[in-house]
Amino acid sequence: MRFEVTILGCGSAVPTLLRSASAQYVNVLERHLLLDCGEGTQVQLRKFKTKFQKIDHVFISHLHGDHFLGLIGLLSSFHLLGRTRPLHIYAPSSLREIIDVTMKASQTHLNYRWILYDLNFNNKEVIFEDKLIQIESFPLKHRIDCCGFLIKEKKRELNVLKDKIKEFSIPLAQIPGIKKGKDLILKDGTIIKNQLITKEPLPERSYAYCSDTTYSNKVIDAVREVDVLYHEATFTEEKRARAKETFHSTAVQAATVAANSKVGKLIVGHYSARYKELDDFDKEISPVFNNYQLAYDGMIITL
Amino acid sequence: MRFEVTILGCGSAVPTLLRSASAQYVNVLERHLLLDCGEGTQVQLRKFKTKFQKIDHVFISHLHGDHFLGLIGLLSSFHLLGRTRPLHIYAPSSLREIIDVTMKASQTHLNYRWILYDLNFNNKEVIFEDKLIQIESFPLKHRIDCCGFLIKEKKRELNVLKDKIKEFSIPLAQIPGIKKGKDLILKDGTIIKNQLITKEPLPERSYAYCSDTTYSNKVIDAVREVDVLYHEATFTEEKRARAKETFHSTAVQAATVAANSKVGKLIVGHYSARYKELDDFDKEISPVFNNYQLAYDGMIITL
Repeated sequence: MRFEVTILGCGSAVPTLLRSASAQYVNVLERHLLLDCGEGTQVQLRKFKTKFQKIDHVFISHLHGDHFLGLIGLLSSFHLLGRTRPLHIYAPSSLREIIDVTMKASQTHLNYRWILYDLNFNNKEVIFEDKLIQIESFPLKHRIDCCGFLIKEKKRELNVLKDKIKEFSIPLAQIPGIKKGKDLILKDGTIIKNQLITKEPLPERSYAYCSDTTYSNKVIDAVREVDVLYHEATFTEEKRARAKETFHSTAVQAATVAANSKVGKLIVGHYSARYKELDDFDKEISPVFNNYQLAYDGMIITL
Repeated sequence: MRFEVTILGCGSAVPTLLRSASAQYVNVLERHLLLDCGEGTQVQLRKFKTKFQKIDHVFISHLHGDHFLGLIGLLSSFHLLGRTRPLHIYAPSSLREIIDVTMKASQTHLNYRWILYDLNFNNKEVIFEDKLIQIESFPLKHRIDCCGFLIKEKKRELNVLKDKIKEFSIPLAQIPGIKKGKDLILKDGTIIKNQLITKEPLPERSYAYCSDTTYSNKVIDAVREVDVLYHEATFTEEKRARAKETFHSTAVQAATVAANSKVGKLIVGHYSARYKELDDFDKEISPVFNNYQLAYDGMIITL
């Protein structure tokens, strides 16, 4: 039951040799997702040995270049590598025109369909769900329209205890009901309470991605109690004014969001290119929120 | 008197870990040029330690993604790194709309001007010149409108021999004329023939870049006798039909262009991603044209 995030790029506006532009690959229960797609993402997907041809859903938080300029190249490579399955893109609506104009100029006719779903920048919204997972977008507070994404497993059914199935010869027909919480009724009418024959499933896991945002209480509400929160930390405290001016966060602000929203673990990234070493991020985050890690390109987070 | 080409990417449509998308950085007499700008070019410019912030002229051969998708990111990085000098872009006109639409979506207002000069896909044309160099575009034969570029030094002036300046006490006022070929006239009216007091300058050097093209006699005419020709060789001979179908060249065809146009040296690149090893390129090129090299990312060609 894999739930794994690969950081493909944790740099910010200006990519460097150390850090690529923003992108993350998520394998959640064998659903393959891409969160943002900065320039160079297709090469990073190869470098970190992801199953990138299985990606069916791409989520673009906003239209600053470092978060989406790798998408057109990826769309084109999917085509050249023989893709026929449709691709679902959740993004600001202007992306549609950018893709259209660029594909027209190159006279490229993709062999597969891409469908773009407009993001909602005012309210939280469920943008994808299937039997096992659900994905929400929620507004971030940035210079232009921007959304975060919350990926969570749905509540699983109860596990029926194997030894009880044997003991009571539970008929197959009753299993689906018991998994949902019903009691067992034996042939003679005896009722066996559900709690005696089941155990709770593993708790559902959740991951939130906050690409570019200033400190915001709304974000705290949106990511409350997730298992892992990725929150941008473009600057250290010394550059707090610059962070405010550019609608970004400092390391302390990211840590404060994590503390106030009571998340399990914090990952920070999206460091300004001015930081070669990240010691100051450690110094500033650890007093505020203890369970954290600094992202690096190629990092794998297992939930 | 530097004339140096750095291969930033010699891959083709699908970039790999081995080869980045097409781009070349040229330093010709301290004019800093960029030929094509595939995805990832800005990182390659850093990786190979070019003086990329000095680039004032960008030449985009055509609008297939692997030749220009890195441009928007580079434009944006120039802005973030404080550029104020204008940037001159020579490209198919549709690039204007792509840049406009993308910049509008990100609400980016660049701090410098960019000027786009439409390429001519029917005839050879001088698209840039100054005191020392001249750059021509010439049509290639590809699936969509595509140009090659020819960069050449202008003919230099004659060198006045230092010992003759002393011997005849040549007045400063006569030097510019002598450099252009005039004879020296002494105070007593004696005429000293120009050939006696000057020597020929170094021959002017030239470099031609053929990004994506099928074999074409017109290309042979356009690159005749250049010192160094970069010609795409996407496929080996076994894939000749595929080359024709996609308007690309085989290694043998590239070598034939070099032989027929009597260039000094051939560099091939733009290899299809299917080729990990390039031994077959060597085998096929060497019998046709001997003075060649296989491009690799980071290669520096000194003219």
